[in-house]
Amino acid sequence: MAVTVDDKTVAELRNLADRLRIDSIRATNASKSGHPTSCASMAEIMSCLFFRVMKYKLSEPRDKSSDRFILSKGHAAPILYSAWAEAGLFPVEDLMNLRKLDSDLEGHPTPRLNFVDVATGSLGQGLSVACGMAYVGKHFDKASYRTYCLIGDGESAEGSIWEALHFAGHYRLDNLCAIFDINRLGQSEPTSLQHNMEVYRKRLEAFGFHAIVVDGHDVEELCKAFDEASSTLGKPTAILAKTYKGYKFPTISDELDWHGKPLGAKADEVIQAIEQQMQPGTSTGVPHIAEPVNDAPEVNIDDVRLSAPPAYKMGEMVATRLAYGTALAKLAEHNPRVIALDGDTKNSTYSDKIKKVSAERYIECFIAEQNLVGVAIGAGCRGRTIPYTNITCVGSHAGVSIGEDGPSQMALEDLAMFRAIPGSTVFYPSDAVSCERAAELAGKTKGICFIRTSRPNTAVIYENEQAFSAGKGHVVRNHDEDDLVIVGAGVTLHEALKASDMLMESGIKAAVIDPFTIKPIDHDLLVKEATRCNGRVLTVEDHYPEGGLGEAVASTLAEQRNVIVKILAVREVPRSGPPEVLLEHFGIGAKAIAEAAKKLVAL
Amino acid sequence: MAVTVDDKTVAELRNLADRLRIDSIRATNASKSGHPTSCASMAEIMSCLFFRVMKYKLSEPRDKSSDRFILSKGHAAPILYSAWAEAGLFPVEDLMNLRKLDSDLEGHPTPRLNFVDVATGSLGQGLSVACGMAYVGKHFDKASYRTYCLIGDGESAEGSIWEALHFAGHYRLDNLCAIFDINRLGQSEPTSLQHNMEVYRKRLEAFGFHAIVVDGHDVEELCKAFDEASSTLGKPTAILAKTYKGYKFPTISDELDWHGKPLGAKADEVIQAIEQQMQPGTSTGVPHIAEPVNDAPEVNIDDVRLSAPPAYKMGEMVATRLAYGTALAKLAEHNPRVIALDGDTKNSTYSDKIKKVSAERYIECFIAEQNLVGVAIGAGCRGRTIPYTNITCVGSHAGVSIGEDGPSQMALEDLAMFRAIPGSTVFYPSDAVSCERAAELAGKTKGICFIRTSRPNTAVIYENEQAFSAGKGHVVRNHDEDDLVIVGAGVTLHEALKASDMLMESGIKAAVIDPFTIKPIDHDLLVKEATRCNGRVLTVEDHYPEGGLGEAVASTLAEQRNVIVKILAVREVPRSGPPEVLLEHFGIGAKAIAEAAKKLVAL
Repeated sequence: MAVTVDDKTVAELRNLADRLRIDSIRATNASKSGHPTSCASMAEIMSCLFFRVMKYKLSEPRDKSSDRFILSKGHAAPILYSAWAEAGLFPVEDLMNLRKLDSDLEGHPTPRLNFVDVATGSLGQGLSVACGMAYVGKHFDKASYRTYCLIGDGESAEGSIWEALHFAGHYRLDNLCAIFDINRLGQSEPTSLQHNMEVYRKRLEAFGFHAIVVDGHDVEELCKAFDEASSTLGKPTAILAKTYKGYKFPTISDELDWHGKPLGAKADEVIQAIEQQMQPGTSTGVPHIAEPVNDAPEVNIDDVRLSAPPAYKMGEMVATRLAYGTALAKLAEHNPRVIALDGDTKNSTYSDKIKKVSAERYIECFIAEQNLVGVAIGAGCRGRTIPYTNITCVGSHAGVSIGEDGPSQMALEDLAMFRAIPGSTVFYPSDAVSCERAAELAGKTKGICFIRTSRPNTAVIYENEQAFSAGKGHVVRNHDEDDLVIVGAGVTLHEALKASDMLMESGIKAAVIDPFTIKPIDHDLLVKEATRCNGRVLTVEDHYPEGGLGEAVASTLAEQRNVIVKILAVREVPRSGPPEVLLEHFGIGAKAIAEAAKKLVAL
Repeated sequence: MAVTVDDKTVAELRNLADRLRIDSIRATNASKSGHPTSCASMAEIMSCLFFRVMKYKLSEPRDKSSDRFILSKGHAAPILYSAWAEAGLFPVEDLMNLRKLDSDLEGHPTPRLNFVDVATGSLGQGLSVACGMAYVGKHFDKASYRTYCLIGDGESAEGSIWEALHFAGHYRLDNLCAIFDINRLGQSEPTSLQHNMEVYRKRLEAFGFHAIVVDGHDVEELCKAFDEASSTLGKPTAILAKTYKGYKFPTISDELDWHGKPLGAKADEVIQAIEQQMQPGTSTGVPHIAEPVNDAPEVNIDDVRLSAPPAYKMGEMVATRLAYGTALAKLAEHNPRVIALDGDTKNSTYSDKIKKVSAERYIECFIAEQNLVGVAIGAGCRGRTIPYTNITCVGSHAGVSIGEDGPSQMALEDLAMFRAIPGSTVFYPSDAVSCERAAELAGKTKGICFIRTSRPNTAVIYENEQAFSAGKGHVVRNHDEDDLVIVGAGVTLHEALKASDMLMESGIKAAVIDPFTIKPIDHDLLVKEATRCNGRVLTVEDHYPEGGLGEAVASTLAEQRNVIVKILAVREVPRSGPPEVLLEHFGIGAKAIAEAAKKLVAL
């Protein structure tokens, strides 16, 4: 695949690389922070990609048929901004607003910018996202756009990168090109592999890539490598670019202790040195950008609903994990862009039910959950699919109620973790009807959704016609003049109902609330019921006490005078045993609830 | 390195493997759950390791000089228990108590058992722990014990495994032997590489290992490979064992859909078939176990203290991350077993200060944080060192107060996550004096400790002589008849103090509390001060509202009638900007606090 790159193009790409370098120096000097040396090592890669290789539209940076670019080393944001500015998307002068509070040109890229699909900056995550995009391009869009991901050599030590490489190799994603910017230096010392290019090559080849080692500052070599990547079929390509951190910055290039530092007083001198090397006679205007082939189909990801409503009998015993699988299949039946991902647990979580609707709409990610999440984000971020993933976004097998497998298999921190994600929605359905609706609602909700399903069978408590929405709880049991209100979710809601029966025998009236979502939590309902029930609230959860249901209720009621909240939760590392025994043993079974309720009423 | 294994040993090891197989079938049948087929694939590996290769003491399973064994695929726990039982540690009959609530023989191994150093079962974590043990053996203990880690092929897709392999290769841990049980089948489908042994070999070699492919059911080949591993210098060894899931189980071996299933009614027939193949005439008694060489030194990890007390001037501006570094160096000066780990951020977190005391006591883990945590656990779990790690156990650069780098660099969920870990202690020092003491206390505290340090300089507010302890807060400002109490931590404590000054000008008296630890939180002090201050509590944190300081305070006060808690926290994904501007912008600066306090008092 010898492709010749004409001298004029070579000269232009070189000069453009230097323009990007200079822009990055200026922008980080203006913000007095940032990573100009990390930009300089990848300047030629960026000029080749943005001004010769990639096909995209300035008029619509998120165009469905355009090539994708993911900057995994997000701290090199200034050169990404510079590339789009030099391409003509916005004025180059705007780069001087880098990192200012009123500018979207933040320290690391975020999707507030119309040319950024996913936020990067947390190292090691970009390649998984790129894999998700490439998988969708190849298998769902069946379109010709390509996906490029630029990875720093420091972050290539992250295990998530190797999970993603394995995924790309396994699925032979030949529409993916991973570029490693191997500039030898980390933040605090050289990387462990430094410029040992042959080790990189061996690793990438062993992971199923066509690997090409290049001088990352030679635009001719780079262009040839990109052309070779485009014409390599049956496997993804990795371009291993040997580069220098701070390349072309005199006295700074390839030196330690220049990570994340603007050049300050040295900037003028460095810019002058770079400008002196630039070749005169090449254009200084907006360069040519290749048009994409408009071959990605229109899709509708907004029309999300169950193909048929829930169909259960009241009191029927169904595990919510199974109801989730049933709902997933129904959602997939209705919308061809509903897909599911799992990490070799599809027969436990019931995500395999989508395979009966369409085997192609299931992506097996094997036991590599970080990559699974990244692939799901990549598959969903451009509005191309509605990805449902297990382990992460649907957590079955939560809590001590899984039983004999023991504590390492019991998710007891999942609510705390998912609640703490900004903009997240946390569903915790307690029966099959509400679980099917949770699965449906999740597909329509922006931001990260988590559905906590349960392993054991639980009784159906809602009519099939019951309406559900995020942030809206349900009073599932009440009496005139209740003495207290109990809030449970999942298995503990059913324990709360049993406790309410027991308490009635002792003459204590206990209302029971199903919050349905833990985030947002139904503030108004809780305030109303807490007030009605003498300010006595008892929460019970199959979760550690921190950050879960109890704290969600306590914090939403924290500004109410005259309300007390008693929190029942798993307060030690649990152990193996039968689920029903464990619930009582760890103080969240019906008896424990009834006992705590009696004490609360006696206060 | 041709080593002959005599026929008698071969026959005995084969029979022992079959005894382990049969034990695993019986135990999982008794518990009606568990993974007998996952045990069967590794039976020969276990018999060779436990009855020929490893040196250890039954009288003291955690003996400091004994070889270490980590079962990364923790779901194969029954065969681990069986190996120790057949070795003579406890009666083989006890295996029938597998997974019962009153037995420590849980579904997955936990360190409640005296022969288990770390809990496994969450896949992909064992090799990092083994790396930590091997690093300590080679560089700190300088002893001859070896570390063996058995990894499942399914879990070898986890990125954390590749982080660990890279670490082992980089540090040439030739006292480490990783054994891959490549039994071809995952839980729900074949693994992605199935029996493609040459791909495994290439990957392992590219990661710096001496890789040996063997028939994992041939004890002679296994013994030779283990001998070769022991005599291979300058690099770690990986034994890539081609095995079959359910090996020797007729109609089950190498078949799908037998993951995690006891044999039930088929058990007798299978046991019979195995017994028929066993060679008569070999011993059925307790096999020979090699004695360890007693060459690991005695160490004292309990004597943890600062070599000199804090020495700051009141009001001096010092970042707590810097005070942490200073304390780390002082702790290292006092105790030679204090070590530090970091992931290429040592010049930002100041963990590099330990290098001035002793460069060898610093372990660079590069940008691979999962492995960093595992290595720290491995280094600490046998009481051989007191590891301090950054990114995980000391989180500097938390919150919006880091400023311009933007949201991907701001830890805003860290408190929620660390609080949710059972048995954890979460320190959040607000000045240099308390930070030095937090570092000291963490070294003496069991369980996972997290110290949240801050990037910006904050004023010293404590005398150098002030005493600190976990769970004990401090009233840093109070007046007669306070109208409310404000709880802040880190940067927000200083904002709270400024707010208290502002409020005084409006005639409102605000007490200020520094909780010092967020978990445990000082319940008694908070109840007392909340009561004294008219039941009005205002919390403010540089963290998302879920699971952090506010919810910790709200939940500990939840059972108090007549107390209200108002929570100020970062309620949206933040953005780049100067730290002091961001604090006000996101509603956690002094002005925002004062405003919220005024509203609270007016209620």
